[in-house]
Amino acid sequence: MDQGEWDMTKTVELVVVGSIGLDTIETPWARHEEILGGSVSYACAGASFFAPVGMVGVVGEDVPAECEAVYEGFGIDLRGLQKAAGKTFRWSGVYEADMNHRRTLLTELNVFADFQPVLPEDYRQAPFLFLANIAPALQLHVLSQIRSPRFVAADTMDLWINTAREPLLEVIAAVDLLALNDAEARLLSGEHNLVKAAKKIMKMGPDYVVLKKGEHGAMLFSPRGVYVAPAYPLEVVHDPTGAGDTFAGGFMGSLAESGRVDAESIRRAMAYGSVVASFGVEAFSLDRLRRLDRTQIEARFKEFAALTHLPQA
Amino acid sequence: MDQGEWDMTKTVELVVVGSIGLDTIETPWARHEEILGGSVSYACAGASFFAPVGMVGVVGEDVPAECEAVYEGFGIDLRGLQKAAGKTFRWSGVYEADMNHRRTLLTELNVFADFQPVLPEDYRQAPFLFLANIAPALQLHVLSQIRSPRFVAADTMDLWINTAREPLLEVIAAVDLLALNDAEARLLSGEHNLVKAAKKIMKMGPDYVVLKKGEHGAMLFSPRGVYVAPAYPLEVVHDPTGAGDTFAGGFMGSLAESGRVDAESIRRAMAYGSVVASFGVEAFSLDRLRRLDRTQIEARFKEFAALTHLPQA
Repeated sequence: MDQGEWDMTKTVELVVVGSIGLDTIETPWARHEEILGGSVSYACAGASFFAPVGMVGVVGEDVPAECEAVYEGFGIDLRGLQKAAGKTFRWSGVYEADMNHRRTLLTELNVFADFQPVLPEDYRQAPFLFLANIAPALQLHVLSQIRSPRFVAADTMDLWINTAREPLLEVIAAVDLLALNDAEARLLSGEHNLVKAAKKIMKMGPDYVVLKKGEHGAMLFSPRGVYVAPAYPLEVVHDPTGAGDTFAGGFMGSLAESGRVDAESIRRAMAYGSVVASFGVEAFSLDRLRRLDRTQIEARFKEFAALTHLPQA
Repeated sequence: MDQGEWDMTKTVELVVVGSIGLDTIETPWARHEEILGGSVSYACAGASFFAPVGMVGVVGEDVPAECEAVYEGFGIDLRGLQKAAGKTFRWSGVYEADMNHRRTLLTELNVFADFQPVLPEDYRQAPFLFLANIAPALQLHVLSQIRSPRFVAADTMDLWINTAREPLLEVIAAVDLLALNDAEARLLSGEHNLVKAAKKIMKMGPDYVVLKKGEHGAMLFSPRGVYVAPAYPLEVVHDPTGAGDTFAGGFMGSLAESGRVDAESIRRAMAYGSVVASFGVEAFSLDRLRRLDRTQIEARFKEFAALTHLPQA
């Protein structure tokens, strides 16, 4: 289904909370200032191709006029989007040539510092919840308002592992899935080997751990074994910012669309997440995702499945 | 079939040329001095589980007495193994904690400096040839003696890309498959993006390019698309030395066993190579491979296939 076709009055199946930011991004080939980004932007955009998604986030008074229109173009439910006095969250980073390494130049929480969202009644009934990367206390605040979620995923980052470990451990204990990159998995677990790290994190609570490895794909650790999703091989990567969030959004959207959380649905959700993320990095901000439709996703999904297809003897 | 079951008089199906070395290896957890290694040792061991393999290599007078017995334990045909006056090739390296990074401390060619093997008549009829990592001139010297090979693969390294580019380009133009790691692919092609790099290398001659990514697996680029082989997830990696050679040996052995070079056989060869290499890194030198049998390989092959299995909707 094309995202333009959503019935806006449809019940929200997936709620996502995270940051909305104005990003300044430099790659070896380009520089863009104050473009729309943030974990909830990418995650909701990624999810929007699969299921009705509601956004929980906050912008400041300086947010560009077109911001809401961009979200509406994806059919994202915006009843959980607030406008607050002050400046919008800002992030700035520089990528090296291999795109797998970046340096953060600036992070300004701004309106996020005091964000205490009260969720619309409709959101509280949602079966799927994604706590995108934001302060663990805020993740807990949102989680506590969802009545009986069927599947909750969370993302995090080194900042919270280092500075907010206690509330983060509370989040981890409460969710079904934790997504993090390999360096974060090592930092959180104290284990260098990634298999050991994932097992140790699973003991902290979640049934599922997703290790995001950027251009090397992602690994899902589950009680029923490991699934390895490659990254779709791209000749041109313009901006990897938000790829992990787009992946997680696509993953949760696909899971919500299937309405199931069995091993097969979760593997296919990993694949759909990878596919949507592979489109996202083809342009800055949400630009490529805005031109994406389900037909393109399905075509690349087939190519993605072929990437790892192993014929029987 | 267990490697002990080979009929030693069986015609050699696969010939491998490369280095035999005494390696001194340090990891954060252990140090081993002058243990048996070298590209041809690992590659022949990896291949030995699948097809009759003949070794082309040279040792010095200082080689340990058990060396030949180790090779014979794998059922490797040793008619192409020479003993020369002088010292055996030596290599020494140190691994960092993540095992994907190593520093070479020492490389001494010794008896390899003047090695000009004359291949046994039987080897010249072999349909499969693997030119493991060694000077391109020596690779060409061996290649020229094989009458009508069906499939030739070559490995190389940054040293030859930097110091012997012309003969290396001759090798590349003459082979069906080139295996190299991502840094080497970038160095050889001048392209940073790995998809572009692989395509550019395919234009230099080979139909197939295998990008070895260590703990992130390997990618096969072919005229019929890309295959991504994950690395089998291991909780303990004792020594990654020779993993790429063991992989290539397993790959070529599996191909020789199938007797075919179609897309399906090549994908399964990638998987068998990955599986054998995953055993190899569980111990130093050839120690784990010496205790390996085909039953263990098949069991892990099934697990390997499950790693990337993507159910249909």
